[in-house]
Amino acid sequence: MKVIVIGGVAAGAKAAAKSRRLLSEESEVIIYTDDTHVSYSSCGIPYYIEGNFDNFETLLVRSPEEFEASGVRVFLRHKVIKILPESKQILVKNLVTNQAVLDSYDSLIIATGASPFIPNIKNIWYKNIFTVRKIEDAINIKARLAATKRAVIVGGGYIGLEMLEALVKSNIYTTLIERSPHIMPALDYDMSECVLEQLNLIKNNKFEVITSDAVAEFKGDKDGISGLVTESCREIDCDLAIICSGVIPNVELARDAGIDIGETGAIRTDKHMETSVKNIYACGDCAETNFIVTNNPIWIPLGSTANKQGRCAALNACGTEDEFPGVLASAVTRCLKLTISMTGLTEKKASNLGIETISEIVTKNDKVGYMPDAKNITLKLIASKSDGRLLGGQAVGAGDTDKRINTLTSAILAGLTVDEFRQNDLTYAPPFAPTIDPLLNASEKLSEKLKHQ
Amino acid sequence: MKVIVIGGVAAGAKAAAKSRRLLSEESEVIIYTDDTHVSYSSCGIPYYIEGNFDNFETLLVRSPEEFEASGVRVFLRHKVIKILPESKQILVKNLVTNQAVLDSYDSLIIATGASPFIPNIKNIWYKNIFTVRKIEDAINIKARLAATKRAVIVGGGYIGLEMLEALVKSNIYTTLIERSPHIMPALDYDMSECVLEQLNLIKNNKFEVITSDAVAEFKGDKDGISGLVTESCREIDCDLAIICSGVIPNVELARDAGIDIGETGAIRTDKHMETSVKNIYACGDCAETNFIVTNNPIWIPLGSTANKQGRCAALNACGTEDEFPGVLASAVTRCLKLTISMTGLTEKKASNLGIETISEIVTKNDKVGYMPDAKNITLKLIASKSDGRLLGGQAVGAGDTDKRINTLTSAILAGLTVDEFRQNDLTYAPPFAPTIDPLLNASEKLSEKLKHQ
Repeated sequence: MKVIVIGGVAAGAKAAAKSRRLLSEESEVIIYTDDTHVSYSSCGIPYYIEGNFDNFETLLVRSPEEFEASGVRVFLRHKVIKILPESKQILVKNLVTNQAVLDSYDSLIIATGASPFIPNIKNIWYKNIFTVRKIEDAINIKARLAATKRAVIVGGGYIGLEMLEALVKSNIYTTLIERSPHIMPALDYDMSECVLEQLNLIKNNKFEVITSDAVAEFKGDKDGISGLVTESCREIDCDLAIICSGVIPNVELARDAGIDIGETGAIRTDKHMETSVKNIYACGDCAETNFIVTNNPIWIPLGSTANKQGRCAALNACGTEDEFPGVLASAVTRCLKLTISMTGLTEKKASNLGIETISEIVTKNDKVGYMPDAKNITLKLIASKSDGRLLGGQAVGAGDTDKRINTLTSAILAGLTVDEFRQNDLTYAPPFAPTIDPLLNASEKLSEKLKHQ
Repeated sequence: MKVIVIGGVAAGAKAAAKSRRLLSEESEVIIYTDDTHVSYSSCGIPYYIEGNFDNFETLLVRSPEEFEASGVRVFLRHKVIKILPESKQILVKNLVTNQAVLDSYDSLIIATGASPFIPNIKNIWYKNIFTVRKIEDAINIKARLAATKRAVIVGGGYIGLEMLEALVKSNIYTTLIERSPHIMPALDYDMSECVLEQLNLIKNNKFEVITSDAVAEFKGDKDGISGLVTESCREIDCDLAIICSGVIPNVELARDAGIDIGETGAIRTDKHMETSVKNIYACGDCAETNFIVTNNPIWIPLGSTANKQGRCAALNACGTEDEFPGVLASAVTRCLKLTISMTGLTEKKASNLGIETISEIVTKNDKVGYMPDAKNITLKLIASKSDGRLLGGQAVGAGDTDKRINTLTSAILAGLTVDEFRQNDLTYAPPFAPTIDPLLNASEKLSEKLKHQ
């Protein structure tokens, strides 16, 4: 048995390690990656940049040497340029020597990940404009910080907000520019507004957030950028720019091989993480999955999902049946004092899918008010108008929003209705929750709304 | 319509307030309580004593004047000494004047609460020995702190551990004495052991915990205690003692009226919080309820439950049908750096009920290891051996255990199996969770155990 894994960051590294554990000693497990590193925490880059730890090597989970010692062969700087499903072979180019060789597989696992989307901005290739994805990005941004006076972040999604925290904590005045009227576009507009309001309350001359505008052109010279002009003619000085305009799945290799690409633009997979071509699996940021709430295809590139998919792909690739049921679109991010968290369906998305929803927003303390660290959270619950089933939740605030959203993930996974959920026996003590938790308060109110609609 | 509520702390206050909102203006809502205060946060007393806020009045949620202004009549220091269900009357004694009068009701809500259990210890009535229940306790303990050099806590349950934190934070060397071999008897023994080990790691000459021993006799004179002798002849100096030996439900009044007392010793109620006598409801710490996991009677005195039961009792007492399905025995407490949290069935209890279980314990970081505030948590998951259904969870640690337990409450409420739960899409970002959350890691392992049993 020979398993080849293309890509080795999160899903790929997991798939290879799991395959190795599943297979006998004489079987082969190989990782080919065009990257310079394997098995690293891409999500950790903002936390390295903000100074939580000093050495980028902390981001490396498992070295090529550790892989080799466990019996996984790792080829860095090796780009797979063609998959030949008929002959179960791949063509691999060594990016250092430029030589290409054929290798053959019994099972192939595609974990090519995603790449930063680079918006069409004039002079975007000037020096000191970075994306946040690879180990080199981490090293280069970190090395640039000392010489940076003013920074700009292009894009107000998860990574944009995480980089805002990282730069502000590095004492660099930062302007975040978001093209749409709303930052955090994964949220409903009302909750995006809430995030923006709360960010404006804490900006304290350390950063600014501009919405409904976009960078038209970077200014500067061969030594790097010195500023930019926006589409509405704002001029902003800056000597560092971070492009956080989202990512796109790396699917060319799969498409060229005749593997189906799904409606989300990522590689279509079934519950076994198998692609449309037998014995070829896909997992991680290049793969489409199932949105459990609606059973629609969805593409949510995320480290935790990559890990689970990598495991599932490996099991099936090695002959043990396993199913990955999909995701709930759960996510969380921190930006300075704020935690922003969500799971399930947004009203925005429900409306696109023609699902009628009913929702409730409450703002409450996360603990009993007399506790000195009690902080506000704003919580939105979304339910199906027809049957009262919980469909989603979003929360923003300085208080504990994240784990409250996880209380909802179980409920949504299980298909609980609002009326069932409002009776949930959540833990209570003054340092942890008010007597009536915001989740129960919101579901109580939503339950009433459902009754009287 | 006339609703009389006996007791006014948590369940009683809620029941009265809710009844008032439900009923027309000409209807009457009355609270009789033998207490000196109404509507206060008993659970907040340890946090007042440890100095989170300066004024005990912060513990008061709603004053008698506020109740009166809303149309609820409040009679403090009025003890209901008899219920006459035949004539729908109660006999109430004014504790100041010692006069007794009859009053009549349409619906009666019993919320007489619970009282501290006072163990049979010689000289327990000496001065400076306190329980932790009422506003007077809070005031008296707080007033005594400045003159206290060394304290003893009798009992190692929730309140005992909370008072340990309060006294240690008040810079008083404290000895906690627990009669059984295990503190936190609500937990399984293995998790109790874990709590004790972790407490011993942080005791730092500020406190000690003694198990398998009990106070035999307090020493001292008319001015107060000066020490104690334990059953195993330890002699301990102390000038303050806090009795935290549990509580017992106040059911005498109900029992005298012929109302059924359940097997737990608390007042039996149905899903409408109605007792065995029509038009008489019971809620809060005096009432038995349903344990959702096994559908057995259970008695868990807790502020959050009291609140929900008070609401449900009021709805039914005022003519709107509502059901309280019961509890999951969820609870949380903090003791210094440790959070201890649980929900559902313990293996101890399962064994008593003849339910075969299978469990898994993992100790993991609560966040990605490179985050500076990552801390260990130890998590136990319990499932049914026969069908893999999640039955309970317990967690201890310096990290975020509480809200992880709440992720389980939804799952247990919904009847998810371990195999369904392990696929849960929990939120992930380095400041909040490792790539594979301890909950998923534990359920993954438990799922494997279930497969290979």
